[in-house]
Amino acid sequence: MPITVVGLDGDDTLWHNETRFNITQGEFRELLHRHAPDAAVDEHLFQTEMKNLGLYGYGIKSFTLSMIETAIQLTEGRIPATDLDVILGWGKRMLMQPTELLDGVQPALHELSNRYDLLLITKGDLFDQESKLARSGLADLFLGVEIVSEKNVSSYRGILERRGIKTGEFVMVGNSLRSDIVPVLELGARAVHIPYQVTWHHEHVPEESLPRSGWYRLEKIAELSPLLASL
Amino acid sequence: MPITVVGLDGDDTLWHNETRFNITQGEFRELLHRHAPDAAVDEHLFQTEMKNLGLYGYGIKSFTLSMIETAIQLTEGRIPATDLDVILGWGKRMLMQPTELLDGVQPALHELSNRYDLLLITKGDLFDQESKLARSGLADLFLGVEIVSEKNVSSYRGILERRGIKTGEFVMVGNSLRSDIVPVLELGARAVHIPYQVTWHHEHVPEESLPRSGWYRLEKIAELSPLLASL
Repeated sequence: MPITVVGLDGDDTLWHNETRFNITQGEFRELLHRHAPDAAVDEHLFQTEMKNLGLYGYGIKSFTLSMIETAIQLTEGRIPATDLDVILGWGKRMLMQPTELLDGVQPALHELSNRYDLLLITKGDLFDQESKLARSGLADLFLGVEIVSEKNVSSYRGILERRGIKTGEFVMVGNSLRSDIVPVLELGARAVHIPYQVTWHHEHVPEESLPRSGWYRLEKIAELSPLLASL
Repeated sequence: MPITVVGLDGDDTLWHNETRFNITQGEFRELLHRHAPDAAVDEHLFQTEMKNLGLYGYGIKSFTLSMIETAIQLTEGRIPATDLDVILGWGKRMLMQPTELLDGVQPALHELSNRYDLLLITKGDLFDQESKLARSGLADLFLGVEIVSEKNVSSYRGILERRGIKTGEFVMVGNSLRSDIVPVLELGARAVHIPYQVTWHHEHVPEESLPRSGWYRLEKIAELSPLLASL
């Protein structure tokens, strides 16, 4: 069955995301080392984020709250409130940053939108993701936008059912094996993995656990249109 | 045209919400008065929330971040980090609270769901709202769930268009004139206002600014089914 609908992930597939978290996390590490020179900042922050995931979900607001919590814990409450205010400011800066598209995204999406129905399928904070899309200049190219709190088999199934899309005509494109590839293959649809330069630890999946067929890996989004035409 | 689709707001229409924010805000006021006895805590918090709305959107995480910011500002950075940790804890407590339905919601929704397609249309934090719905025990009664970042004419229009619902067959039910009534009337659909015991200042609308017809006011959700049958 030929592909008619292309689902595209946003963060680190269309626009930069993880690198921005990494930059802020670097500043955070430096700030905390002034108060607790030997603290394992990154490990502790990751643990805090994972512990809070079920309550906070993904996104910059969650990240900011977890940074504040980590800072208080690692300094045993000694960090001055003015430093926590600096952390609040980092969160706001991240929320205000312009959406920076990955190389080649604009022409690739323009071409794809002439031949397929494009759906943006992204997880995370609703408000933040809508705002990023609005600032991306890409909104008009999408037939629809689906922002889900978690990308799993049931959320993908819901999207396809609601929109009357058959699994055979759908392909999902994204940078995360865990969120964009594995659940889509489980559903019986196809998927294209385009790795980003960094992957958040939480999104790692051992490659051996993936099925051998039904998915493809590309280096950049410019290669997507020729691949889809060949399917 | 008879009504076939009923849109229902969640917060303070189906389950308690604003009272919970008020309870936490009372504790927050008390905590801050220990450090700054004369501070106008509520006014300052409201201003901070409004200033942050365009960046944070609605919801408990946003409220928590705005409380922390207000606490730091009103104490000029003197508040100890351990007190800010208490505020973080309040946010988590709010996120974990069971969904407490308003009186009469369960039987009213069961009855309505036999005669109409029910849509939950709620604004705020995606993750938080999904989690509240899951804990409400009502999820199976809804044909669909729409969580939007802001309830305005364009978001309601989007929902009706996407679902192929005519304005004449749709009625929206909710506690907020600003979010549930005004934009729906502007779209040409009907609306039912069921006030809650408290209204967040941000949601106030002068009643004179509303159209005279096209909307109804009920005291409780048990009156909804007879009203709809009479339309």
